[in-house]
Amino acid sequence: MDLSTRRGMPGLAYPEDYLRRLADELAEKFAGIFSAETVERYVLESYTGLLRTSKVKAHLASQTIRFATDRLTALAQAKGAIESPVPEVLFVCEQNAGRSQMAAVLTKSLSEGRVHVRSAGSSPVAELNPAVVAVMAELGLDMAEEFPKPLTDDVVQAADVVVTMGCGDACAIYPGKRYLDWELTDPAGLSLDEVRVIRDDVKSRVEELLATLA
Amino acid sequence: MDLSTRRGMPGLAYPEDYLRRLADELAEKFAGIFSAETVERYVLESYTGLLRTSKVKAHLASQTIRFATDRLTALAQAKGAIESPVPEVLFVCEQNAGRSQMAAVLTKSLSEGRVHVRSAGSSPVAELNPAVVAVMAELGLDMAEEFPKPLTDDVVQAADVVVTMGCGDACAIYPGKRYLDWELTDPAGLSLDEVRVIRDDVKSRVEELLATLA
Repeated sequence: MDLSTRRGMPGLAYPEDYLRRLADELAEKFAGIFSAETVERYVLESYTGLLRTSKVKAHLASQTIRFATDRLTALAQAKGAIESPVPEVLFVCEQNAGRSQMAAVLTKSLSEGRVHVRSAGSSPVAELNPAVVAVMAELGLDMAEEFPKPLTDDVVQAADVVVTMGCGDACAIYPGKRYLDWELTDPAGLSLDEVRVIRDDVKSRVEELLATLA
Repeated sequence: MDLSTRRGMPGLAYPEDYLRRLADELAEKFAGIFSAETVERYVLESYTGLLRTSKVKAHLASQTIRFATDRLTALAQAKGAIESPVPEVLFVCEQNAGRSQMAAVLTKSLSEGRVHVRSAGSSPVAELNPAVVAVMAELGLDMAEEFPKPLTDDVVQAADVVVTMGCGDACAIYPGKRYLDWELTDPAGLSLDEVRVIRDDVKSRVEELLATLA
């Protein structure tokens, strides 16, 4: 089979020109902080990183913009080139499809802007767990914009607190950060009722964490 | 649990100083081609990329050296800054633990230096499939130095031929390359006899491919 024919199929062709234009725009935004070379590498490697495990390709370019911008922002924070006025919390689980996503959205909501949040997975899957999306919607929390992302060095470097969930060894240990490991049931394959119990467990842990960050 | 205590545990502590020294050395090697910033990003992201899915941490630093050096070499080839005198072939499967590793080692051996080979996985696992290592040893081929690696943009850019094995959508389609998809049985969980059949299938496909590259 000649895969190059895929270039003519909508949604599967590689948006190279688009990504290079995006890299140029981002390079302007990060001028004086990162070289154009670094920014282009971030954009193309972020695309490849998401493409590896994605199934639906329709949102890949817009997810790449968000992922690359967030990674470059994290690295600029870690270098001290961009201010980081609130504590940075990173949640890491295996798939970045359930636990770490719930923790991130709950922390964002409950902290009311007093904390900035990122999440990632050691072995990200194609899409969020639908049961997780459903039980978060019950709390009025919208996860439509979220997607699984591989764990990268930049977001670890930017974090003040790293919370791992069953994949502690997948995360580099840098000095000067607080590392926590939460033992949470994996919601993969569980019923809505079971996922609600996990959601409430995550919520009370997030509340405890936020109390220590106040 | 406070994970920061892991810093004192041999093999689990993060070799940050070592990796930064390595980045300095590599930056000298790639001086005039890449900035020190790019090289440091490559070293630290390569480490994080391998750490995500590795189990045994003992070889992680030396694997990081090889992975980062290979990725930077690939990118320099793609930019035309380092000569690429022989065809570059990239094999991509899901786990980079069996099929793509067999294909890479067989191509390297059978081509006798007339082709340069890389391999990667869309969702790499912790280690090579032991049955694959065993059946390759039967042909006198040593896989002791090989390890699963995530697919990155740089190695795709450097390739003249990209051969995917059951994960064609995980790989960006660049112009000017030849793309092939081989339908091979996944050796995961199979017996030695069954893996031998796959090995021989891979071998004859590699021979066909090499004939077209001659």
